[in-house]
Amino acid sequence: MGTIIKELTKVEDAKRLILNAIDPMVSTETIALIDCSDRVLASSITATRNVPHYRRAAMDGYAVLSSDTIGASVTNPIMFGVSENAEQGTCTRVHTGSNIPESADAVVMIEDTAMIGDMVEIRTQVHPNRHVGRIGEDMQGGELIFERGHLLRPCDIAVIASLGLNEVKVYRKPVVAVIPTGDEVVPRTTAEIPPPGKVLETNGLMVGLYVKKWGGKARYCDIVPDIPELIENAIRSSLDADMIILCGGTSVGERDHVPAVVDSLGEILVHGVGLSPGKPTALGIIGNVPVVCMPGYPVAGLVGLFAFARPVLRKVGNIPYIPDTIIRARMGGKINSKEGYLTYSRVVLDDGIAHPLMTSGSGVLSSVAKASGFVIIPENVEGYEEGQDVDVVLIE
Amino acid sequence: MGTIIKELTKVEDAKRLILNAIDPMVSTETIALIDCSDRVLASSITATRNVPHYRRAAMDGYAVLSSDTIGASVTNPIMFGVSENAEQGTCTRVHTGSNIPESADAVVMIEDTAMIGDMVEIRTQVHPNRHVGRIGEDMQGGELIFERGHLLRPCDIAVIASLGLNEVKVYRKPVVAVIPTGDEVVPRTTAEIPPPGKVLETNGLMVGLYVKKWGGKARYCDIVPDIPELIENAIRSSLDADMIILCGGTSVGERDHVPAVVDSLGEILVHGVGLSPGKPTALGIIGNVPVVCMPGYPVAGLVGLFAFARPVLRKVGNIPYIPDTIIRARMGGKINSKEGYLTYSRVVLDDGIAHPLMTSGSGVLSSVAKASGFVIIPENVEGYEEGQDVDVVLIE
Repeated sequence: MGTIIKELTKVEDAKRLILNAIDPMVSTETIALIDCSDRVLASSITATRNVPHYRRAAMDGYAVLSSDTIGASVTNPIMFGVSENAEQGTCTRVHTGSNIPESADAVVMIEDTAMIGDMVEIRTQVHPNRHVGRIGEDMQGGELIFERGHLLRPCDIAVIASLGLNEVKVYRKPVVAVIPTGDEVVPRTTAEIPPPGKVLETNGLMVGLYVKKWGGKARYCDIVPDIPELIENAIRSSLDADMIILCGGTSVGERDHVPAVVDSLGEILVHGVGLSPGKPTALGIIGNVPVVCMPGYPVAGLVGLFAFARPVLRKVGNIPYIPDTIIRARMGGKINSKEGYLTYSRVVLDDGIAHPLMTSGSGVLSSVAKASGFVIIPENVEGYEEGQDVDVVLIE
Repeated sequence: MGTIIKELTKVEDAKRLILNAIDPMVSTETIALIDCSDRVLASSITATRNVPHYRRAAMDGYAVLSSDTIGASVTNPIMFGVSENAEQGTCTRVHTGSNIPESADAVVMIEDTAMIGDMVEIRTQVHPNRHVGRIGEDMQGGELIFERGHLLRPCDIAVIASLGLNEVKVYRKPVVAVIPTGDEVVPRTTAEIPPPGKVLETNGLMVGLYVKKWGGKARYCDIVPDIPELIENAIRSSLDADMIILCGGTSVGERDHVPAVVDSLGEILVHGVGLSPGKPTALGIIGNVPVVCMPGYPVAGLVGLFAFARPVLRKVGNIPYIPDTIIRARMGGKINSKEGYLTYSRVVLDDGIAHPLMTSGSGVLSSVAKASGFVIIPENVEGYEEGQDVDVVLIE
């Protein structure tokens, strides 16, 4: 089987091709408010009532009818009786957040009053609505609060809770079938060191954990050997997922069948991208299920995951774009890149200096363990010199 | 009861005071690798074996004894027989990742070979170790891979998995008791609109969800009215937690008992900070349990949470500092601040412009719902002008 990478597609073009082919999910679920942090609203939230739903004291003090305070000052205080409802020249003790009695229209701060026996001395004149939070000051009934597609933060959830809502409709999390492939790959449950030529499955684990971190649900599939029929079966039984990620078998060797199998079931849109490491990445679609084929080399797979699987997951799952954490740093050494490739160069951050990691290749996953982040070098830039200022995208 | 805020402590000083009083947790747990994303290593990880544990082919091609290829070139190819173990002038087919037979010491890339009948034509001379990944190239047995205190990312977990480990020792997640207080606060389970003067509990929910997001475990406590004895009881029954956050009752009104109660049980280190909004924040410690007292006004509470509760949670839980996501933007309007206060000004980001949110105060939580982030204005800066470049800290 095997396909041939004829020419490399630029990363931006490859991304556009796959994203344009995807329809975001429409499936929703209604869940308890307490569980919806980092979930995406599937319908807009409109205020069902006024918040506050009563006139609220904005200060500790006394609620009064403002016209009763005309002329009051420190040198010329006015004496008020105390009542429950601030009627007829009396005042009512209120605390921040208290209801203002109907007959009152202002609050005199506690600092501008004094208790003299049973009476309260009011030492300042207040205008109507002074220190009164009006009904609907925070939210007005009928007001649009959040639009569909909003990513819910804890502070947003508090806002929704204040409306008396206890659950919300959110998009279902996209289910991502993660299929590790490769004759050399053995399950991690193996107690002993695998025989020479065999490696423990780690790419699928890494992919699944990133899928979860980015807002999806990983469905871990069994390891599939490099046999086209078995790859096809594994893909077919994952077509109920919202997205498929295959690990390995994307290069051009005689054991690399994944892109050809995807193409036979649907369409390969891109095979071979100007991404370093990560060149053998392939992107396709089967029916309406996007399929990302990651290189088996762990670092190449990781870079492909950041460059392609994450934007695809976001589009599928209606998950808004959140910028990466970027640290401005100064290069502590020279880094090179290949012209025509968008290069993800691993660096260690130390006190504002980005030290390049000298590594022997994309097979060395431990180089990522040592890396704080990537310096991403554009296709038309040859590299960065020591001392140059760069953006480091944190690996999180 | 009630205490009086005599003078305001600078935010940096307040943070230092509370952080210096805290001992990080030492309690650990051993959990499955698949569950340890975003957890903190409680002991270092040393490579238990070499990875790879065999000499690995770095390319598809033929394993050979390099000395057998001396003189080979396109114009002068050398014919090899094919064998299982590359002995005596024969070669063995290998794929990327395959084991290299013992008698071979190099790999000739498939591109530099041709199959002629049963024989393989080798068209290039290779030096020893060409395209051979040595044993331990990725990790050497005994090598320190991760130090204690490392925050585990999915790519790190893959590295640990490749060592054959299936579980790791991590720090227990800090348990944070969240205690909402206030006579005016009623549970969210109330189906009807609460009576005037009563508000639904939302601060505790917000705090709990942020605690969870930041790596802690929230324990939601019942709402406590503004009665010192009941506040004391609630705190006492939460002293088995790793941290306590109280919401409300921190100001200087006659219903504000929280700081005094904390001080009676332990010590209040700070009451009143140069933070706007968030001035009535109080910080204390009871035994070895840090206690953060958040203002009841929701926006002030949120700002206090970011400024104090998060760093405290990190220190308690051994959670490494991760920088906030910061977006560089241009002010779309003027924002003011009070001198002597570190001011968190809410802004809406739109296409690189930070538009200030005009709001009527820290009681209006919906202003946060509209905000993308904070522009943080230092104590000695009066504000920012329209057109000025600023950093916006995203509210996530």
